[in-house]
Amino acid sequence: MKTLLSLLLLLLTTVANAWDREPAMGTYVDPRIGSEGLGRVVVGPSCPFGMVKPSPDCTVRPNSGWLPMPALVNGFSQTHVSGTGGGPKYGNVLIQPFCSGMDRISHPTLRKDEDIRLAYYGTTFENGIQVEATTAERASQYRITYSSDSMQCLLIDAGWFLGEQNKPDAREAQNFVGSQIQIVSETEVQGYTRIRAGWNEGRAYTVYFSAQFDRPISQFKTWSAPAAEYADQMDEETRNTVISDAPYQVDNQRKTGALLCFNPSEATSAQSSSSGQTKLNVKIGISFISELKARQNVKEQIPHWDFDQTRQACIDKWEALLSKIEIGNTSKKALPVSNSQRRQFYTAIYHTLLEPVDRTGENPLWSDPGVPYYDDFYAIWDTYRTSSPLITLLDPQRETDIINSLLNICHRDGYMPDARSGNCNGRTQGGSNAEIVIADAYAKGFTGIDWEDALKCMLVDATVPPGGDQEAEGRGGLVEYLRYGYIPYGIDRAGNRTVEYAFCDWAIAQVAKGLGYNSIYEQYMKQSEYWKNLWRADYEHAGVRGFIMPRSAEGEWLDEVPFGHSKKQRPTFLYTPVTAESPWYTPWWGTFMYEATSWEYSLSIPHDVPGLIEQCGGPELFRQRLDTFFDEGFYNVNNEPSFLTPCLYHWIGRPDLTGERVRQIITENFNDSPLGLPGNDDSGAMSSWLVFHYMGLYPNAGTDYYLLHAPLLPSTTIHLSNGKDFTIVAPRLSDKRRYVQSVKLNGVNYPSSFLSHTQLMEGGVLEFIMSDKPGDWGTK
Amino acid sequence: MKTLLSLLLLLLTTVANAWDREPAMGTYVDPRIGSEGLGRVVVGPSCPFGMVKPSPDCTVRPNSGWLPMPALVNGFSQTHVSGTGGGPKYGNVLIQPFCSGMDRISHPTLRKDEDIRLAYYGTTFENGIQVEATTAERASQYRITYSSDSMQCLLIDAGWFLGEQNKPDAREAQNFVGSQIQIVSETEVQGYTRIRAGWNEGRAYTVYFSAQFDRPISQFKTWSAPAAEYADQMDEETRNTVISDAPYQVDNQRKTGALLCFNPSEATSAQSSSSGQTKLNVKIGISFISELKARQNVKEQIPHWDFDQTRQACIDKWEALLSKIEIGNTSKKALPVSNSQRRQFYTAIYHTLLEPVDRTGENPLWSDPGVPYYDDFYAIWDTYRTSSPLITLLDPQRETDIINSLLNICHRDGYMPDARSGNCNGRTQGGSNAEIVIADAYAKGFTGIDWEDALKCMLVDATVPPGGDQEAEGRGGLVEYLRYGYIPYGIDRAGNRTVEYAFCDWAIAQVAKGLGYNSIYEQYMKQSEYWKNLWRADYEHAGVRGFIMPRSAEGEWLDEVPFGHSKKQRPTFLYTPVTAESPWYTPWWGTFMYEATSWEYSLSIPHDVPGLIEQCGGPELFRQRLDTFFDEGFYNVNNEPSFLTPCLYHWIGRPDLTGERVRQIITENFNDSPLGLPGNDDSGAMSSWLVFHYMGLYPNAGTDYYLLHAPLLPSTTIHLSNGKDFTIVAPRLSDKRRYVQSVKLNGVNYPSSFLSHTQLMEGGVLEFIMSDKPGDWGTK
Repeated sequence: MKTLLSLLLLLLTTVANAWDREPAMGTYVDPRIGSEGLGRVVVGPSCPFGMVKPSPDCTVRPNSGWLPMPALVNGFSQTHVSGTGGGPKYGNVLIQPFCSGMDRISHPTLRKDEDIRLAYYGTTFENGIQVEATTAERASQYRITYSSDSMQCLLIDAGWFLGEQNKPDAREAQNFVGSQIQIVSETEVQGYTRIRAGWNEGRAYTVYFSAQFDRPISQFKTWSAPAAEYADQMDEETRNTVISDAPYQVDNQRKTGALLCFNPSEATSAQSSSSGQTKLNVKIGISFISELKARQNVKEQIPHWDFDQTRQACIDKWEALLSKIEIGNTSKKALPVSNSQRRQFYTAIYHTLLEPVDRTGENPLWSDPGVPYYDDFYAIWDTYRTSSPLITLLDPQRETDIINSLLNICHRDGYMPDARSGNCNGRTQGGSNAEIVIADAYAKGFTGIDWEDALKCMLVDATVPPGGDQEAEGRGGLVEYLRYGYIPYGIDRAGNRTVEYAFCDWAIAQVAKGLGYNSIYEQYMKQSEYWKNLWRADYEHAGVRGFIMPRSAEGEWLDEVPFGHSKKQRPTFLYTPVTAESPWYTPWWGTFMYEATSWEYSLSIPHDVPGLIEQCGGPELFRQRLDTFFDEGFYNVNNEPSFLTPCLYHWIGRPDLTGERVRQIITENFNDSPLGLPGNDDSGAMSSWLVFHYMGLYPNAGTDYYLLHAPLLPSTTIHLSNGKDFTIVAPRLSDKRRYVQSVKLNGVNYPSSFLSHTQLMEGGVLEFIMSDKPGDWGTK
Repeated sequence: MKTLLSLLLLLLTTVANAWDREPAMGTYVDPRIGSEGLGRVVVGPSCPFGMVKPSPDCTVRPNSGWLPMPALVNGFSQTHVSGTGGGPKYGNVLIQPFCSGMDRISHPTLRKDEDIRLAYYGTTFENGIQVEATTAERASQYRITYSSDSMQCLLIDAGWFLGEQNKPDAREAQNFVGSQIQIVSETEVQGYTRIRAGWNEGRAYTVYFSAQFDRPISQFKTWSAPAAEYADQMDEETRNTVISDAPYQVDNQRKTGALLCFNPSEATSAQSSSSGQTKLNVKIGISFISELKARQNVKEQIPHWDFDQTRQACIDKWEALLSKIEIGNTSKKALPVSNSQRRQFYTAIYHTLLEPVDRTGENPLWSDPGVPYYDDFYAIWDTYRTSSPLITLLDPQRETDIINSLLNICHRDGYMPDARSGNCNGRTQGGSNAEIVIADAYAKGFTGIDWEDALKCMLVDATVPPGGDQEAEGRGGLVEYLRYGYIPYGIDRAGNRTVEYAFCDWAIAQVAKGLGYNSIYEQYMKQSEYWKNLWRADYEHAGVRGFIMPRSAEGEWLDEVPFGHSKKQRPTFLYTPVTAESPWYTPWWGTFMYEATSWEYSLSIPHDVPGLIEQCGGPELFRQRLDTFFDEGFYNVNNEPSFLTPCLYHWIGRPDLTGERVRQIITENFNDSPLGLPGNDDSGAMSSWLVFHYMGLYPNAGTDYYLLHAPLLPSTTIHLSNGKDFTIVAPRLSDKRRYVQSVKLNGVNYPSSFLSHTQLMEGGVLEFIMSDKPGDWGTK
């Protein structure tokens, strides 16, 4: 029997892999997907978790820098984050080639065309200059093609950054601190930009650079402009006064930069082509430590001038990760996997692995030898649900490193971040969700983490009120949460904080239990029910009863609540489960629910869905509620708090409805176009949600199980870190046969719609037997 | 009548000034006073409020770096703080000349002699090398004299810092983050040291340097050693592996440095002397911004190689300040002012003006054009009582700048500091005493400060609990203070925090009242009485009744209290008004009273002495209590909380007793020797206390009045910022005639022992008529 099973297994695996093996998944990565509209992904090249992400900036306004044509391009800056909302961050060290105007410190230019691929961005400007960009982890590379008979110039702007506003300290705006630039040799310019604030309202961070050229500089000028001036708003007179012949500009809290020219006659034959064009190769090392470290980063990561080799090295790193999951057809009869699906799937994996960024050895705040350092957790509130679990599947060592970095940050900075960027914790949208990330890894049996220490760090969040800035780190409103068992209205985000803290408490309880701390377990399990203290059982809306609603410290339910922070006028307004307004000057931050309505959060209790069903009046009423939620438009696809909601049908024995909702949501909201992501990708949160649902496997972060539902792909093989393969097949999947009749795990009937991580890690084949109507799979 | 008075005034003023005018007060400054024992002042040169303080370091242990001979000198680092307790801070960028041993990265050397004067430190080492140091605000200068026939070498250690310990994260120890060094030309080496923690447990700070030489480097080596290694503990093998010929060492989180040799034959005739010696001049620019800024600081502040000129410029800055107060004799009959008194007096002024340091334009965290930036508030808890009031008298514009810097820090960092160093707020010993500094300036009618904004910043301290680290900034235990009206035992420093917060609340009330915020005034006046909630009226000790004593949250008085932070064992011990023990690993921080006993703090209610007298049972019992305090040894001269206590006799109409106590305390505890300060000078706190008492004028910080008592000098003239002079004379003062018979202000009888700042600022003459026994002056 056992032998037969093994044989069957082998056969199935072979079949799964044989049909449609992808030699280069990277060809399906299209960084344009989700770049327009709300997606806001960065389009420029990046290595997996790479610190450097060179990309064009079109004014300082877009979060990712880039705007579609015909917007003017100001240049290419070396640092970006992907998929973010709120005020922009980074956009440091801008270069821009030009062919005339050494008296101008700004050269915005129009594009004629654009070519965006994995590890590559290319454009030809209307002035005829072509720019191609690729990158290593800590150094970017550019190949610039000029007309041989024009001037061949390059601007380096050390004062540029995204999100600058006309007045200092605008909400969520980055602010200038200082900059410096120095022509250090014929072929090298170094300097830095120092910026503070931005979305996470962080302290100052410094981005050092070393720009190196494969041809000598034949002429240069530098500038030092008042911090308040926009380069493109500067009048000619001012412009002349700021440009000088000095070989360096000291950081006197002014915006500095350099204008460089390269002599075509010094180009080697390799740089000049017969078509009258000359190439300039530029490498830009980036560091958060020093200019010399930036230079060292170039030397170590791009020790040559071969642009294509740099790009290939980056592609290879991606292939190694992307190929961890192979998708394809299981039989000729099955619906073929479309090009669009492949593009969506691999691009979504790509998006997930852009952040956080590995800055080990690049931390200017402390050095703990051997301990990894990651930055740009942006934000864990967004990514804990699906990004972390996906990294766990693809690269568990990476996830281990990320968690050890979180613990180290707690030791050194006092708290684990919920968001962190520019070396500074900042902004907690809801809970202190690093706890969920840790509980998820614990549940999945990670080694290489000091769990006693991890529990201590989790307990810091849960016991130490953050004080001064209640939205920077830790748990704002913690004192009241512990005193009342909920956060009373009047404290920002009282609703979702209560709900999410209860979930985080549950996560603490799980780890405590595993480590044998029973009294901690019991205390936090009790607290994990605090969400019920905001459950207004008799409140009715759209035919549904019971919602998380505002409550005063005195215990009274509030129908009218004050709006915004005004203490004098105290304008009030009606709060209902669909209220989504927030004052324009503090979008979401001063409301009852962050980035969601009560309708959404009243279904967002991932740690106690049975308890939720009970609160909602039992399975039948719960099903009606879910149907109303989706059918009446209360569901918001672009919003993380509703990520799990389509799967809640699982808990009432209806995985078929989960599958149906998921398929509908994806079909209606996702595609492979620039508008293909329905909301901010949030460092890959949205994308990783898509990856899991494509496979028919969805994690409930913080737990050890996945929810199974009808996949959207006929075959997926995950090459696990332990050397085993786990294959999910749905051989007869088609638009019609989209319902799961039954499921077999390694050939044996598998009636449950839940699968543990342990089961998955054992490898094998999970087969969905598809039909044109649901069977009774998962109903018990 | 008026004319007559004017004439008299003129006469008196003339007399006061004529007798003993000092052409150079700086000759009386002896940086050795207070350098040994507890004083811990820095001995090396410094400009007033100067950022750079070059001084010898003898191992990494002493707070000021320096130890008396015969200790070995490791070298001269460029940054120090003066008079501090706890773990050391700074000690960055060490240089040391040597004449053999290019294979050794450490050259500790014995001194043959030492010469320490204002703006000058000189020593001759046993190897014959002479080192002289002087300084500008942001660049130091060295003149090194070698024997012409020896090697002429210099070590620059970018990995050196004070307070390093063998294990990471030892309590209050500085920790290494990174360093870098680069030979940038024949005559310049640049780099930086990045260090975190230290006494204030601050975030990382970076000290950049540019070292410049007046002779070309003839030979160099650089090193890069593991962070954990002590240079002097490294075995020969390790040493050889870390030294290389590379012209730079990148910051790879290792300790870096350079060994340089200079060729005697390249010395100019000015550098070589006929006696077979050759000089090397070294200038070291320091910056917290960048290496280039450090270079610019040299260029701007020492644009020449003339050591003596640099020293003279520093002396001139001191003279301008020291000469604001002239002291001398009023008549030939009077006791002459001794050399020792002059030395103590001017050195004490000197000590007071060493910190905080002016770092305007040197802030790496933010740039707010036009706003001053000061660092090294170390700590305001120490300095608010007498240092700030003395700076106010000598240089009110400086004090305005300091206060504006405090407000700016509040805007950017969330709180005003109580202590700040290395660009980071950290450690609140008691109250949030920047509030007293502000109230003091407000009471004294400062302009140039936005008082509405100042009140807002004060209210941040008083209303926003600091969260996570309850001893970094703001008011730790604030929630409980507001809830119970006192801080219950169990929260660190419950006793002195309660007492000091009440004082701080009084300060807020005063400013609020002045600005017309009556409800704030009333609320904070109410809170200013909270110290009474810890007044255990029936507790008796040494025949005195009523003490500030530990109380539980439930309101019970505690005789036995838990000791330290142990939660398992909960060792308890008897707490009495003389208890001063604290766990060795947290000296003072975990106790009921910071750095003092209940005896001391029960007399430390500067804002409500009449209320205190009432609590103590009225004037007679209060007098007995004060006598007991001083006679039975409960007074601690080296401790700031007891600074005002000798003056408390004023409030019961006995300024004669104040005078008597003050004279006795000074005679017994202060002198002009290296051991001449009885406790940590704490950035001049101890010294400024002495200055005021010498004059017979003592401020009660936060109020607009001074307490008058028998001076120790026969004549003092303060040249006020408004161009007027205020002269205090005691023409017949002698050891015998040490009692005040009566006082005349501008020739008119002045029966009060209190004088307002407004009166003082009007200028004029205050004459003490001295006698061999007290009169009835000040008794009403």
